[in-house]
Amino acid sequence: MTIEKQTYRSGPYKSLYAQGVKSGNVLYIAGQVGVDPSGKPGGDIIEQTRLAYQNIQHVLEQFSASASDIVDETWFVTDMKDCMKNSDAVFGMRAEFFGQQPDVAQTLVEVGALVMPQLQIEIKCIAHLN
Amino acid sequence: MTIEKQTYRSGPYKSLYAQGVKSGNVLYIAGQVGVDPSGKPGGDIIEQTRLAYQNIQHVLEQFSASASDIVDETWFVTDMKDCMKNSDAVFGMRAEFFGQQPDVAQTLVEVGALVMPQLQIEIKCIAHLN
Amino acid sequence: MTIEKQTYRSGPYKSLYAQGVKSGNVLYIAGQVGVDPSGKPGGDIIEQTRLAYQNIQHVLEQFSASASDIVDETWFVTDMKDCMKNSDAVFGMRAEFFGQQPDVAQTLVEVGALVMPQLQIEIKCIAHLN
Repeated sequence: MTIEKQTYRSGPYKSLYAQGVKSGNVLYIAGQVGVDPSGKPGGDIIEQTRLAYQNIQHVLEQFSASASDIVDETWFVTDMKDCMKNSDAVFGMRAEFFGQQPDVAQTLVEVGALVMPQLQIEIKCIAHLN
Repeated sequence: MTIEKQTYRSGPYKSLYAQGVKSGNVLYIAGQVGVDPSGKPGGDIIEQTRLAYQNIQHVLEQFSASASDIVDETWFVTDMKDCMKNSDAVFGMRAEFFGQQPDVAQTLVEVGALVMPQLQIEIKCIAHLN
Repeated sequence: MTIEKQTYRSGPYKSLYAQGVKSGNVLYIAGQVGVDPSGKPGGDIIEQTRLAYQNIQHVLEQFSASASDIVDETWFVTDMKDCMKNSDAVFGMRAEFFGQQPDVAQTLVEVGALVMPQLQIEIKCIAHLN
């Protein structure tokens, strides 16, 4: 017997994967990128970070969850130097989502590319819900 | 006291890591690559995707699990453009494993290299079992 | 209501993220890199691997956990060829941490860069505790 899963699907690839899958109290959120609701990428990593968290927020809401439920995140960026050069603004966008001193483990690596050439950041999160 | 773990080991690196580790109802599957049972890589990303899922299937079976138990997967590909150019065939191979509209969260990034130069895709999965 | 989390914070970025977050019996450890307690990177991937596990060990201890509690790890290296060329020594450092035949699933990929240019390896772990 398969375990019960709750899922949320949206976007152009909704037949391929779910944006969020909850099993037990664990919510796995698909890697979210910095596009607006129409699919247009933000102009720089700062704006893309804001949009990625906006998209994470949208998924969380489908499960009645919030930023404080996130326990772990992995950042995949395409230009680490640019990310670090703009780190105050980039992490400022993150602080607008999480607040100060979030109880979240983080991993940050540079990758060669994301699913669209204009994308500069993808954020993968795990949340634990009640 | 350490938590009880069930593991499955196989292949040339079985002294180094387990192909699957189950703790509680969570099964962590080591990143699976597109090699056949003799260790030979598939000729392109389409065939390697088929083989990677075949290898995931093999690990799942050791835990009496199946594709529908997978909740989250991360794809590491070495050539995103090639992956996207062949996306119908690549995701077709995935659909043969998961079926249509799988309840799985996905993250897809391009990395610089995998453990062998010929490899083009590695898939990391987490499953929740009963 | 948000689930209860235990966290451990340290280092120069402790306002940004936690080195470890425990929720239920799952401990998510932030990606650990090969720096010594003063923040100085090790000279090669062998030494950096030793230091990364030393840093993982330090986080585990804050949760009264140990190497045998780890169930899954992902290695992000910046030079796969160099990692493989030195694999005996690199995995020897890992064996000093885990012992022989660890019950751990592993994924190993090459990334473009880590948070500092000198870094050659980052290790992300998940542990399950009692």
